[in-house]
Amino acid sequence: MDKNTRSLLTIITEMSLEKTLTKELQELGALGYTITNARGRGSRGARRSDWDVESNIRIEIVCTEVIAQAIAKRMQEKYYDNFGMIIFSNDVSVLRADKF
Amino acid sequence: MDKNTRSLLTIITEMSLEKTLTKELQELGALGYTITNARGRGSRGARRSDWDVESNIRIEIVCTEVIAQAIAKRMQEKYYDNFGMIIFSNDVSVLRADKF
Amino acid sequence: MDKNTRSLLTIITEMSLEKTLTKELQELGALGYTITNARGRGSRGARRSDWDVESNIRIEIVCTEVIAQAIAKRMQEKYYDNFGMIIFSNDVSVLRADKF
Repeated sequence: MDKNTRSLLTIITEMSLEKTLTKELQELGALGYTITNARGRGSRGARRSDWDVESNIRIEIVCTEVIAQAIAKRMQEKYYDNFGMIIFSNDVSVLRADKF
Repeated sequence: MDKNTRSLLTIITEMSLEKTLTKELQELGALGYTITNARGRGSRGARRSDWDVESNIRIEIVCTEVIAQAIAKRMQEKYYDNFGMIIFSNDVSVLRADKF
Repeated sequence: MDKNTRSLLTIITEMSLEKTLTKELQELGALGYTITNARGRGSRGARRSDWDVESNIRIEIVCTEVIAQAIAKRMQEKYYDNFGMIIFSNDVSVLRADKF
């Protein structure tokens, strides 16, 4: 396994944002993404109360650090304060880096 | 993206434990968690045979290292030997650390 | 939490491969795996067009680095060029390393 490093960016948010976000991810340069349905509990940001809903999604994007930062920046500007959303990232080793 | 580090703690276990565990996670200080349904195969611990069931859950908690350790300790004491359960953690960079 | 390090290997691929792959994972020494249903978009490799299907799976395996490399190698040889498949890995701290 070649040891190419990429960022694994994970966004957990409300399912209602799925279509909007996946369009934005592609505009921002993500070559792919993976979505799983999730449920959970968390903070919703300043303007809304506790986030405790069934219909969440978990979006994973493997991409370069530059694209990960661009996505995180856009999410923060547009959604982070007013939707249930958390974002985190870590480095991963990828097989066949040309796919990302 | 600010580079605040938190622990991403992942617990994979039997779905029957969901209510009990999420209550304990909150008691132990987790501000949020994400659950996805899963299936899998693994070891069940000493007293039971192979773990090969459909109804598993995958719980993710982004939290401080201190809370991650408290959760792992509690899980080990109460469940690890007698339920299908695996726990692992890694560091992640989080956006807006005040959410965790 | 003892700080034993293992590899967390994640394979995202087409659901049609589930039975074949889980059999191979066990042959290659994985003691367990976790599968979640997923959907997504990505590249399918050289011979096929864009990967944009609903029926994907996300397989996670916590194992030694040696086994992770053996699995990644097999996946690359047999599937990586002709199926929608991405593979990435990162180190995780595990509780009770004897389970993996």
